[in-house]
Amino acid sequence: MESMTFVLFGATGDLAKRKIYPALYNLFIDQKLPQSISIIGLGRRALSDAEFQNRVEQSIETFSRRVEHDYSKMGEFLNAFRYKVLDVTNTEDYGKLLDFVEQREEELHIPENRMFYLSVAPELFDGIALNIKESGLGSTTGWKRLIIEKPFGHDLESARDLNVKLSKAFEEEEIYRIDHYLGKPMVQNLEALAFANPVLQALWNNQYIANVQITASETVGVEERAAYYDGAGAIRDMVQNHMLQLLMMTAMHLPKQISANDIREEKRKVMESLRPLKKEDVGLHVIRGQYSAGEIHGQPAAGYTDEPGIEASSHNDTFVAARVRIDNPFWNGVPFYIRTGKRMKEKSTRIVIEFKDSLKELYRNRNEQTEPNLLIIEINPNENVSLQLNSKNPLNDGKMEPVRINFTSEQEGVPEAYERLIFDAIRGDSTFFAHWKEVELSWEWVQPILEAFEENLVPLHLYQAGSYGPEAAHHLLKEDGFKWWLDKEALKNLELALQA
Amino acid sequence: MESMTFVLFGATGDLAKRKIYPALYNLFIDQKLPQSISIIGLGRRALSDAEFQNRVEQSIETFSRRVEHDYSKMGEFLNAFRYKVLDVTNTEDYGKLLDFVEQREEELHIPENRMFYLSVAPELFDGIALNIKESGLGSTTGWKRLIIEKPFGHDLESARDLNVKLSKAFEEEEIYRIDHYLGKPMVQNLEALAFANPVLQALWNNQYIANVQITASETVGVEERAAYYDGAGAIRDMVQNHMLQLLMMTAMHLPKQISANDIREEKRKVMESLRPLKKEDVGLHVIRGQYSAGEIHGQPAAGYTDEPGIEASSHNDTFVAARVRIDNPFWNGVPFYIRTGKRMKEKSTRIVIEFKDSLKELYRNRNEQTEPNLLIIEINPNENVSLQLNSKNPLNDGKMEPVRINFTSEQEGVPEAYERLIFDAIRGDSTFFAHWKEVELSWEWVQPILEAFEENLVPLHLYQAGSYGPEAAHHLLKEDGFKWWLDKEALKNLELALQA
Repeated sequence: MESMTFVLFGATGDLAKRKIYPALYNLFIDQKLPQSISIIGLGRRALSDAEFQNRVEQSIETFSRRVEHDYSKMGEFLNAFRYKVLDVTNTEDYGKLLDFVEQREEELHIPENRMFYLSVAPELFDGIALNIKESGLGSTTGWKRLIIEKPFGHDLESARDLNVKLSKAFEEEEIYRIDHYLGKPMVQNLEALAFANPVLQALWNNQYIANVQITASETVGVEERAAYYDGAGAIRDMVQNHMLQLLMMTAMHLPKQISANDIREEKRKVMESLRPLKKEDVGLHVIRGQYSAGEIHGQPAAGYTDEPGIEASSHNDTFVAARVRIDNPFWNGVPFYIRTGKRMKEKSTRIVIEFKDSLKELYRNRNEQTEPNLLIIEINPNENVSLQLNSKNPLNDGKMEPVRINFTSEQEGVPEAYERLIFDAIRGDSTFFAHWKEVELSWEWVQPILEAFEENLVPLHLYQAGSYGPEAAHHLLKEDGFKWWLDKEALKNLELALQA
Repeated sequence: MESMTFVLFGATGDLAKRKIYPALYNLFIDQKLPQSISIIGLGRRALSDAEFQNRVEQSIETFSRRVEHDYSKMGEFLNAFRYKVLDVTNTEDYGKLLDFVEQREEELHIPENRMFYLSVAPELFDGIALNIKESGLGSTTGWKRLIIEKPFGHDLESARDLNVKLSKAFEEEEIYRIDHYLGKPMVQNLEALAFANPVLQALWNNQYIANVQITASETVGVEERAAYYDGAGAIRDMVQNHMLQLLMMTAMHLPKQISANDIREEKRKVMESLRPLKKEDVGLHVIRGQYSAGEIHGQPAAGYTDEPGIEASSHNDTFVAARVRIDNPFWNGVPFYIRTGKRMKEKSTRIVIEFKDSLKELYRNRNEQTEPNLLIIEINPNENVSLQLNSKNPLNDGKMEPVRINFTSEQEGVPEAYERLIFDAIRGDSTFFAHWKEVELSWEWVQPILEAFEENLVPLHLYQAGSYGPEAAHHLLKEDGFKWWLDKEALKNLELALQA
């Protein structure tokens, strides 16, 4: 790994504290940082290096996944950290920063490899990028890279605009757009499951698959993010990025090489094949929901419009379900259903692949019932892969019953999404970052939905907090003869958990 | 279920005691016997009904799968049992038996439905069947059925001869040939796994399957059956019946209807497609082995020729491995390997289906290694279905590793093979009994092997008691670029078990 400088904008912010410092520390402990690294934190408030290092240490002790850990190497780790005050709009500050970066590079014999991590409000992205370029910070003899967080624009136009601005300072291959869902182990495993297993690869198409269901449900409400969330909604907060990324990862086909470029190429092809929605048809395929008062885990939960910071008249979507069609030879005729919501019955991110029940009739003639085969990929909060098969139950006169064969991976000691993603960015592996084309195509697909929501062309269905979302989301599948899998079961599990 | 008479030849024998009475009792408890049933035990020695009932009761208390059971219904159950002395070669005895059967039918208002269970030495089968016919016992106004145990002949000619004789007294559809392997829950489940699961059905052919490995290994030696076993060998004791039945159940293809006839038809088609062996080629595809002294579970074990009742010069096979080719469009190019032996390292009956590793190259280009996908069906001593997939290990930098997703069925309270089979025979369901054509085709395939063994055309490989059989059995697969799966692992498990 090449020695490098890691410049962090927003070094006193919440993301840095909760995710970035613990990630860097754990990479350090696992010997996944370069031999020489200069880490420079930037923020508005004045801090000495010692104060900054102290904050970093605090954040690690509070948020690192490693508990009961021996911190004897902390000093060595913190030694790489320096702090500079920077006003992101002040071009002089960038000149000073350049001097400091170069001074550290010289001290530590680090070549001019510079990573710029923008952990700041998205409105600042383009200004910072421009200043990096104009100050000469970006004119390196080594490599330079930019890591940015979501959101990337708030609609198609603003995203394109942002991209034009960023691309004046950074090439596309220098930009690492974090979608932290792509850092989750089971999402990274999707590629392996589909491509490294001939038995699944053989089944991965419309000959065998009836439909695909991608759910990301949360039990939490809007919490402290009211101002942002009320302007974004589930459609921008979840669908445009995470849900469509999960869809791409599931629907992409075997690339010629398992390389970052080939995988992104396959993901782009999926997005290019999404059947576009017309604004006036959005209501046929997209369900908009908002939670009303209800109960979560036996506790009363307020309705969305009663949450602090939300207008009583808000029409914002806290739930979106959609039927997505992929018009390519692999997926013709296979609906992909996506669903995401806040204040739902359960916290779960999962992908359920329902296989066609082609042998049903054979058994029906014999008065036996079979259930469809399901491949269930649980991403969060637990990681699990299971396959639902029909099997005879010897305790029940050999009657056919569905059984699950499943594999749960060990949870302990698994690197967090940020650890994996920062590690990849440091190595220059962009496989699990969102390419501009993916982002742009996602916005293109989402744009008519944004407009239909804004113009109130689709109903806003209220759903009780603690439910599985509005009835309409169930009808969406019922129209095609399907149902959301695992909902009832999740219900059962929850009840059992509550009893226990 | 129709009321009936159950006539048991060999009522004082070991099989009756260990298997048949406990099976009948458990069927009775589970309300799976007809409302009215007359059970008549036959044997050479004189016993009163009370003495006989007492023996039956003892055998149930000793051998029934139900432990800590309430025996309050025992009296009612035993009430159905009567005993008659019978010399199987004495025609007069059959006349008396007929009178008695009819008397009981009248008493209990049972129509003339008669089941004859021959739990006796195979030399007696044809004589008894003839006497049943000639005495009029078989001339019923209802149905009659014959249940017989293995062995059915000791080579092709004797089996055909026996069949001709039996068929003078019973139609083929009246004959229920027990192969107790077909009574095992996981063997009965093979049909469901392959036919009720579109995801497995799609893969069940030579496009996806590289090879199939069927193992039935025992840790026990020849025990009390020396006289029989030394004349039979593993080839007759295991291969001609159980192993080929497992092969048929695995290789058969989706029938038009899931009926006994259609399934047997599919099994017959498999046997008809087995590539015949020429006597002089047997050595190329069949490994003959015999155990020598060794160790089982840390205890010294004698070699076969040192066992009581075995000649020091015996060339009998206690181990057979074979490569079987099925010449049909589904299985062309897919070797089926069978392997069975006594005094092996572990007790295990299992089927391993190895899928083609078509995606290997893709990952090899990336310096990642994948293992073949395996479907592992464990039949005995534990029942388990598992699928080996390649998955990324998040604890190991996302390196590809094989994982097992598996389903273990509950063991408690599962009916025994004899319970299921007797129940099926009583209901007239012959799905899990061996049809004459299956038996004949099995003998046809085995016949050249019998001759090659007899004429010593193939080497007799000694293998240490407690091993995985002779090296030659491993070379057999190595020639095709394969290996026996799970051996090493079984080794590991065993070691762990021994440590514990």
